[in-house]
This record gives sequence, C-alpha cells and structure tokens, in this order.
Amino acid sequence: MAPAAIMLAADAPKLSSANTGFMLICSALVMLMTPGLAFFYGGMVRVKSTLNMLMMSFISLGIVTILWVLYGFSVAFGTDKGSIVGWTSDFVGFSGIGKTDLWPGYTIPVFVFAVFQLMFAIITPALISGALADRVKFTAWSVFLVLWVTIVYFPVAHWVWGTGGWAYELGVIDFAGGTAVHINAGAAALGVILVIGKRVGFKKDPMRPHSLPLVMLGAGLLWFGWFGFNAGSWLGNDDGVGPLMFVNTQIATAAAMLAWLTYEKIRHGAFTTLGAASGAVAGLVAITPSGGAVSPLGAIAVGAIAGVLCAMAVGLKYKFGYDDSLDVVGVHMVGGIAGSLLIGFFASGKGQSDVKGLFYGGGLDQLWKQCAGVFAVLAYSLVVSAVLAFLLDKTIGMRVPEDEEVSGIDQAEHAETAYDFSGAGGGIVGSAASVVAATESKKVDA
Amino acid sequence: MAPAAIMLAADAPKLSSANTGFMLICSALVMLMTPGLAFFYGGMVRVKSTLNMLMMSFISLGIVTILWVLYGFSVAFGTDKGSIVGWTSDFVGFSGIGKTDLWPGYTIPVFVFAVFQLMFAIITPALISGALADRVKFTAWSVFLVLWVTIVYFPVAHWVWGTGGWAYELGVIDFAGGTAVHINAGAAALGVILVIGKRVGFKKDPMRPHSLPLVMLGAGLLWFGWFGFNAGSWLGNDDGVGPLMFVNTQIATAAAMLAWLTYEKIRHGAFTTLGAASGAVAGLVAITPSGGAVSPLGAIAVGAIAGVLCAMAVGLKYKFGYDDSLDVVGVHMVGGIAGSLLIGFFASGKGQSDVKGLFYGGGLDQLWKQCAGVFAVLAYSLVVSAVLAFLLDKTIGMRVPEDEEVSGIDQAEHAETAYDFSGAGGGIVGSAASVVAATESKKVDA
Amino acid sequence: MAPAAIMLAADAPKLSSANTGFMLICSALVMLMTPGLAFFYGGMVRVKSTLNMLMMSFISLGIVTILWVLYGFSVAFGTDKGSIVGWTSDFVGFSGIGKTDLWPGYTIPVFVFAVFQLMFAIITPALISGALADRVKFTAWSVFLVLWVTIVYFPVAHWVWGTGGWAYELGVIDFAGGTAVHINAGAAALGVILVIGKRVGFKKDPMRPHSLPLVMLGAGLLWFGWFGFNAGSWLGNDDGVGPLMFVNTQIATAAAMLAWLTYEKIRHGAFTTLGAASGAVAGLVAITPSGGAVSPLGAIAVGAIAGVLCAMAVGLKYKFGYDDSLDVVGVHMVGGIAGSLLIGFFASGKGQSDVKGLFYGGGLDQLWKQCAGVFAVLAYSLVVSAVLAFLLDKTIGMRVPEDEEVSGIDQAEHAETAYDFSGAGGGIVGSAASVVAATESKKVDA
Repeated sequence: MAPAAIMLAADAPKLSSANTGFMLICSALVMLMTPGLAFFYGGMVRVKSTLNMLMMSFISLGIVTILWVLYGFSVAFGTDKGSIVGWTSDFVGFSGIGKTDLWPGYTIPVFVFAVFQLMFAIITPALISGALADRVKFTAWSVFLVLWVTIVYFPVAHWVWGTGGWAYELGVIDFAGGTAVHINAGAAALGVILVIGKRVGFKKDPMRPHSLPLVMLGAGLLWFGWFGFNAGSWLGNDDGVGPLMFVNTQIATAAAMLAWLTYEKIRHGAFTTLGAASGAVAGLVAITPSGGAVSPLGAIAVGAIAGVLCAMAVGLKYKFGYDDSLDVVGVHMVGGIAGSLLIGFFASGKGQSDVKGLFYGGGLDQLWKQCAGVFAVLAYSLVVSAVLAFLLDKTIGMRVPEDEEVSGIDQAEHAETAYDFSGAGGGIVGSAASVVAATESKKVDA
Repeated sequence: MAPAAIMLAADAPKLSSANTGFMLICSALVMLMTPGLAFFYGGMVRVKSTLNMLMMSFISLGIVTILWVLYGFSVAFGTDKGSIVGWTSDFVGFSGIGKTDLWPGYTIPVFVFAVFQLMFAIITPALISGALADRVKFTAWSVFLVLWVTIVYFPVAHWVWGTGGWAYELGVIDFAGGTAVHINAGAAALGVILVIGKRVGFKKDPMRPHSLPLVMLGAGLLWFGWFGFNAGSWLGNDDGVGPLMFVNTQIATAAAMLAWLTYEKIRHGAFTTLGAASGAVAGLVAITPSGGAVSPLGAIAVGAIAGVLCAMAVGLKYKFGYDDSLDVVGVHMVGGIAGSLLIGFFASGKGQSDVKGLFYGGGLDQLWKQCAGVFAVLAYSLVVSAVLAFLLDKTIGMRVPEDEEVSGIDQAEHAETAYDFSGAGGGIVGSAASVVAATESKKVDA
Repeated sequence: MAPAAIMLAADAPKLSSANTGFMLICSALVMLMTPGLAFFYGGMVRVKSTLNMLMMSFISLGIVTILWVLYGFSVAFGTDKGSIVGWTSDFVGFSGIGKTDLWPGYTIPVFVFAVFQLMFAIITPALISGALADRVKFTAWSVFLVLWVTIVYFPVAHWVWGTGGWAYELGVIDFAGGTAVHINAGAAALGVILVIGKRVGFKKDPMRPHSLPLVMLGAGLLWFGWFGFNAGSWLGNDDGVGPLMFVNTQIATAAAMLAWLTYEKIRHGAFTTLGAASGAVAGLVAITPSGGAVSPLGAIAVGAIAGVLCAMAVGLKYKFGYDDSLDVVGVHMVGGIAGSLLIGFFASGKGQSDVKGLFYGGGLDQLWKQCAGVFAVLAYSLVVSAVLAFLLDKTIGMRVPEDEEVSGIDQAEHAETAYDFSGAGGGIVGSAASVVAATESKKVDA
C-alpha cells in the first residue's frame, strides 16, 4: 500500500481517469478472487461438503460488503485514533463521501479506494473457511464473520495500511497484505480449529478432492485476480512500482509452483495438480507483501523459498494433529510469514522505497520491523479468533451434529447437494450405465 | 447511459487513452457475462438439457454480433427517425466508421462504443433462454433470436439510450439497462412461454440443478462482468459517476443476496446456494438502472427490496402455472421493474444528475417517467415476443417432440451429452475404488 | 505488434498511466488464457487423462516464466544479432531493467512489455499439448517445453516482432501471433506427433469429451482473454488501432463460430457445442494476425473462411492417420495460415498501416511476404520440433508405457484422478444409482 501523503492544496492531485479506470478493473479482479477461492476450496473437499464450502466464501461477499459500508471503512481507513483504529464519521454509511472527492494524496476517488479495499476485507475472512471444512454451522460461521472482521480485520488493516496505524508508522512493509490478509487469516484459522477440533475421520479417511478441475479453476481465477490485488495496491501507475509488483507476482508464483512440485516429486514421487495449485498460491501469498520491494531475481528466491516451506508446512497438521483441512495455516500463515520476513533479506532498495534488506547491505533494521509486524498480527489474530470461536461454541455452538457431518453438511445445512447427474429419463453418457442409474434413481425418488 | 451531448467543434473532446482502454476492458467483461450466463443456466437444468442451455447463450454471441455489424448498431444508435428507431448508413457494415472517429460528445472511438453496446445486445436475448429450458428447437431459437433483436432489442435500445429516442428524451433514467435489458428480456420470456407452454413434468418432477458449482461459477462470472456492464455504461471515468455506479453495484448485490437468503431461511428453512446466486443476480438487475442515481445507503435499500421481491416472485410460476423454468421473469422482469421504479423514490440528486426521488424531496415527477418507461418496454416486448413465438410455432414449430424432450434435448438437438465419465479402461476415481466407495456409501445411507 | 521506432530523446514518449494500466490488465487477461486452454483441452479428453492435460498447460506457466526472466526475453526482444536472435545483457535476469525505463518508442515500462510478451511465450507451447493427449510422460513434456521455447519460440518471436528480425524487417504482418504463436504451435504439434505416434485406440474408440461444460468454460475464458492478447498487442490506445483490433476480434470469432456450425450441420447433421467452441477458437486464431489490417466486413470474411477451412481440416487426421488429438494442427496451424495469408487479400489500408491486399488494389506484394513468413515459421517449427521429439524419445523416452496409457495417465503420472464423487458417507445424488453406474461402466469397459 502506497503512503497516503498529506498534500498541500496547491499540489493536490487531480482525478486521473487512467488510474481510476485501472483501479476499478483491479477491484473487479479482486472481487473475482472470492468466487475463485470458493472453487479452489470447494473442489478440494468431498462432494458432500462442496456447497457449504462455496457458501462460506460467497456469504462473505454479502456480509462484509454491508459492514464495510456501515462502519468497516471508517474503522480501517478513517482518521487515526491512538494508532489502533480509525474513525471518520463521513465514512459511516459512505454518507459523507462525494463522488469526486479524492483519496488524500492520490488521483482516485475515495469511492474507488473504498471499494478496492472492500474486496480485501471480503476475501480475508473467506480464506479462513478452508480450515473449517465439513463441520461448522452456517449460522455460526456467519456470526463469526461479523465479529471477526469487526474486531480483527478492520483494526489490523488500520495498523498496517492506515495513516497513523502503528505498524504503518513503524515502517513495516506490507505491499498488498502479507500480514493484514494472509498471516491474519492463517492465524485466525489456527485459532479457530484449536477450539473446534477435527473433522470426523481426520487422518483416517483419505478425503480426496472431489473435483481437481474445480480446484484448478479456482487456482486459475485466484492467479488472475491476484494481479489486481497486488499491482492495484499501489493505487496508480504513474511511477513504475505497480508494474514491478505485477512482474514479480508472476515470477514468484511460477517459482513457487515449480519448487512445490519438485519438493513433492522428491518426497512423494509424483507431480500432482494439487501440488501445482498449492504451490502457485503459496507463491502468490509470499510475494503479496514483498513484491514491491524485491527485484525479479529476488522474486524467484521468495517464490522458491515459500514454495518449499509451505509444502513442508502442510504436513505438520498430521504431525501435530490440528485439522487445518485445506491448508490455510500451512499456505497462508506460513507463506505470509515467509514473504513478510524475506523482505528483510531481499529488499533491493530499487522498488517501492530505498529500504534495503540484509543481503543488499541494509542491515537488520527492516528485518526487525518485519518481525514486529508479523508477530503482532499473528498473535492478535490467533488469540482473538480462538476466543471468538470459544464464545460462539459455548453459546450458539460452532459445530454441526456428528451425524450431519458424516452424512454431509450440504444436505443438513443447505438442503441441497452439489450435483445431480440422474436427470429424468436418461442423460449422462447415454450408455447402459446411465439408463440403469436413471432407473435406480427413479426408485430412490419414489 | 450518459447523455450524448452534441459538442461544438471547438469544444470537441479528444480521444482519451484512459477511457478507451477502460471501455475495451469493460467490453471484454460484458462479453464474459454471456458465457457466465450460460453456466448459470446450464448448471440449473438437468444434465440432459445442459448443452442446449449453454448453446442458447453461445449462439447469441455469434448471431447478434453479425447482425449488429450489418444493421443493428445503425438501428439502435444511428440518427433518430421519429423517436422510435435510428439509422445512419455509415454504420451499416461498420463501413463508414474510421478508426479515430469519436463517439459524439465522448472521448472514445465509435468502434469502442459500438462494441461495448454490442455486448449488451448479445446478452439480452440470451437472458430469455432461461425460461425455455428443455423444450425449444435450436433452429427455432436461432430464428427467434434474429427476429427478436431486430424487432425488439434494437428499437428499444434506441428508445432508451439513443439521442432522440422517446424514453431518453422524456428523461427516463436507465443507467445500464433496467428497461432495455432486463425488463425487456423478462417480458419477452413471459410472452414466449405463454405461447409455447410448459415442460413435460412441470410441477411434478423435482428438476433439481444438476451442478450447483456450475451455477455458482456462472453467478461469479456474472457478478464480475457486471462491473463492466454497469460502471462502463458511463463511457469514461472523468467525473466520478462511473465509480459511484461501481460501488453501488457491489453494495446492492450484497444486500440482495442477504435479503434473499434471509427470506428463504424464514420461508423454507435453509440458506441455499441457489438462493445466494439468485439473490445476487436480483441485486445486480435492480441496481443496473438505478446505481448512478442512488446513494450507497440507497443501494442497500434497492438491493434488499429487490432481493425480497424477486424471492417472492419466483414462486408465482407455480401459482399461476407458467413455466418460467429458470426464473427469468421472476428475477429479470421483476428485478428490472423494481430497480427502475425505485429510482423514483431513492434518486439522491447527487449522482448522475440532480434528479431527486420522492424520498429526497423530488415529488412524483421522476416516478411517473420511470413508470412510463417500464410499462412501454414491458408491454411492447411481451406482446411482440408472444407474436413472434406464435408465428414461429405455427410455421417451423418451436418445440421439440415430446419424446425428445423426455429423453433429453442435448442428444436430440446437438448429438452430444454433457458428460461422459466412463472413459475407456477405467477412469473416474479408479473404477474398483469407486465401486467400493459407492457400496460403502450405500451402507452408510441405509 | 506495433513497430518499435527508435525515437530521439527530444521526442521520447513519457510513461502513460493509461496505456500502462491497460497493458497490465491485458497481461492478466492473456495469463488467464493458459488456464482457459487447460480447461478447453481438459474437458475434451476422457476422464482418465484430464489432469495430465491440465498440467501440461499449467506447467508452462511455471517453466516458461522462469526461462523468460533468465534469458528468453533477451533472446526474443534484445538487440538484434544477424536478424535471427536478439541479446541484451541487461535483460538477463531482468537485472538491468529499471522500474521507470520505457520500452523504446512506447509509453509503457519495459517491465510491462516484458510481462505481456511473457504471457504469449507461456501459452504458445501449451497449445501444442492438445495434440499429445493421453500418452506423453510429464517429465519428457517438461524437458520438451524447456528446449522448444529456447530453440523455437524465443527466436521465432524475434523474427516476427523483434526490431531487426528478418520477417519484421521484410514487412510480414503479424499483429498478435498468427505465425509466431499459432502456426508455430500447430506445426510443432504436427512434428511431435509424427514422431511419437498415435494414442492406443485412435480411430477405434469414440474418445468423447468427458465434460463439454468444461470445454465451454475454456472457450469462454479464451475468448475473454483473447481481447487482451489481440488489442493489447498494439501496446496502447492512443490512435484507434487497438480498438479496431478488438472489434474485429469479436466479429471474426462470431463469424467463424457460425460458419463452423453451419458446415457441421450440413455435413454431420447437428449443431454441436464442440463445434461452437472449435469454431470460435478458429476465428480467434485467424483474426490474430489480421485484425489490425482488415475492415469489420473483412473480419467477417476472415472468420467465415477460417471457420469452414478449420472444420474441414480437423477431419484430415482420420484420413491421413496422424493423431492430432484435440485438433491443434487443424485449428491453430490451419487457422493461423488462413489468417496470415488472408491479409494479402483483405488488408484494407485503413487499419494498422496503409498496406493493401489484393482485393483492395494492393497487388500481390503483401501476399508474398505473408507466404514467406508462414512458410518459414511452419517449416522451422515442424522440423525442429520433430527433431527435439525424436531426440527426447531416444533418450528419456516420450511416451508412457501402453498399460499406463490404457488405464489412465492421470493415475500413472500424477497419482491422482480428476474426480471422486464417492465421498465418505453419501453425497452425490442417488447413491444406489452410482453403484450400478460404476458396475455397469466396468462391464462396458471389459
């Protein structure tokens, strides 16, 4: 996130049609990431939990949008109060924002900044849902969403990106959300699953992805949308930093995919599609905070390191017995930490600022700042999320009954199943099989 | 749609690279909505009709593009003839359009305006297809497409958006297509189904969506592309109106999704993915005409009202016995009416113009104009579409034979089936595995 | 590709935020085409080969990105060496590129040009994979990728688009990749399959697409992304050429889809979704080199001719017995040749340059140049690709063992299967049905 310099009226920037149009498209790209995430997660679970997984992401598009308008934008990006939260009453209900008001120090309208940032607030809690496969009541998840963005996301976004926020003022570098988005979501996931416990059958059942093409669709849409997420975070293209971020996003993602695939080939003997998708996401996560600070060769290093670290980290859940179902902790928390800390080593001094990392003669200064940012967000999110989950579990209950979890949360919570290939009167494949299937299914319906 | 003011040569705008680039991307986004719609509809039908549903949308990309080049653009946006249609011979075949000619009063080339508007002409008739699931001959649909865009869409677009068009000159507000696109398509759907009748098994068979992930993919792509549809309709980002539209699009969609889900939870006891997808689309429809006129809080109201109204409206088909298969009438006609009329109540005077609605002290003036636009488009489209369907039914026949409808229109009309999971030599899941898995699943179910 | 004129410092263009933002979005659109291609191809194969097909495209995103950074960009777009290759040491590792350095003669940073062109380098080899369904070792494919882009793509891109490249200097017109991308990939596919031979069961087994919705998703994403591919190739929107290309892309694609569907209706009696998708891609391919040179009516002609030619060409594989599994030769090579040569007939003199084709009074001059470009790329790619495949086959081996090909390459090479609809404890619809279906399908297979 670029600094929001306070400008004198004489120097005040004017609305740039170019940057405004670019940022609107970037906002649309980041919006698409949440459906993309839904498919990425939805394909990974068994068929009986697919819709619930989709809905945990889609509902965030609904709930967080409304909260953001009502007060979220004000808390995250309003005038600083004690370096912890913001508040600007004109932002409440977006009611005091004029259509030509510009975001201070920038060439884009406040509305554009607000809607771009909204998309970040939507996807961050949606990321958490991947750890909660099969087992969380939809109403409990919805209430958790409301509380979590209010108490965790909105303030943390202020810390990291708000003028006056403590991490921002300290000089923690987080271009597009290594701390505020990925560590935040990953630590929250860890906090919640430590409270609510494992799926039925964890470690025993194979729990294979029910549709790897759906996973790859999700990965493809995430990769696509992430360009808007990352390059858009500079809020304009006047100075070449956004393009550098864009280039580094592509490079680190490629490097991480190759690194993950190589690791799993050595360790497990095959190049899997799940590994390719997971590696790509690990690279995207790691370059998110760091892509404006490192060089393209640095981006290869960031991606490769994150790819291997995350591939190693996803195995830990079996070792330590926490059910991080779809590897939110392993990919987003670990990848976010990797990317945030690697800035301290690889910052080239030629990107978003002249800050240099350890390997470029910059000493330990930036590394310690990065550690402070990482640790604070991780600890705050982990603890608060665990407490929220605990309170919800003791009141309305977080988990569905075990029999519903076993028979399938989609039917129990959403009164639907993901697929119905029976048709009435034939259909799929046309072969003998489908006729029989149709006949059988008719009987079942009867 | 922004007003196409006639400028003096001295004040003539110059080509803006910023707005041109933005509008090209918006055009691509709107193009993607038609495949998105195909998946949205295709997932909702049974497996035996999936491909036909996809093809009814895809063929519109082919047919309408060619007609638009040949004469459609001229009819819709040529020089006004009697407030009803347009005609500019230079637009025929696009043959008199130079690559640097600008759209009058704007900073974008004529070609950009023409291709952006083309995408609207493509998706509008495709919307109708959702009401015709399972039962319409593909050739009859193709002929209907040709006639319908020629007699209905091209003129109606002129009424609403063409300089000199009667609704445009009256002051009917339709930012991006509440009347010209959604009421138009919804009323046409109603007209056609009243003529051609119901699917075999209507009301009796469950007709569950064969793939809700496909529905959600469609909904996600529609939401994404709709940002281009709505924000792009201002044709540039120089004055902050496009961004307001963008913000309101997101807000109304979120509100409508939550409203629909709440309504169905109360009425039917579950939050369904189909409800989330339908609610989102209802919100997108309702904000389409109104998003430039209302405030963000107004957008919440528009979305919430439309979400509930459309959720109620989709039940009417069972009550009155018309087979609006995938709720084109219930969502697009009703949502379009809601959004168009709500302008008369919620126009804030601070958006695209200083027009104020009833709740902002503006009296009934705008509301009556909106009623005029709504009623005219609805009545014209309903009647003409019904007549077209009647004539086609009496000549080439609209419906497939009943046995083909029962056994599956995909095989009958397209000589294909959507899926073939058999493979040669094993395939899905590892066939031995799947038998065992399925057997196991049987035991558990039993 | 627009000419890279050398500018005097006084006239040197400045960074345009508008064009930079546009080109970044276009780069993201082209990136999305590779996942789109993966789905397009992945849906067309049988279920047992789906993941391998996806991975052959996705791995290109990984491998080619890294090679491009290391040396590919330098070879393709560095300072010309003998009209055959380029080399600029500053481009190696992107290490001498500053974030505000502009691409010579243009208003966008070098980084933006480099990442846009990278996306072309990624998708071109991925296109080849469609001819290799079911039967190529993943490691062999990966090694082939490395060698092919190094020896074929990077130099050929230089020939066609690099300042000093022989074809570029000769005046061969290739706006966005008819020769460098499509003929190149199609000829390479032909070269490889002549060496490695046919799938088991070629001509005998029906080999029906396992998921036509997945094919249509791929086609939709390709169409969408192709707007960035084509319109973006002008590198900015200051002069109306990019918009013309955009318009023509839509028109030719529509015309080709209709032409293919008409042809197959006449020849085979049905309008198929596979035909619609293939026709659209054929149109996209043919307009890729020509869309900046022809008029909109010319684009209808280019699309219609390419649609029919490609529809005829895909039948040749059965006649001549080469296993072009998913019609890479039939669509990309033939469509690329058609589009490249039709410039010689249809160039209007009013698009990207004043060059006129035969039908516009321009004589045979441009047609011969186009023939030279087509023939050179076709011959070079065909021969070198065949040699590479031969060498790899003799060393590490190109094909998987026959039993693995029959039982399914996904399981053998990736230790995964695309779908698992079993779930533990129920799930997909009519569980009884699935048991019977699976059993039946086993019988059918046996």
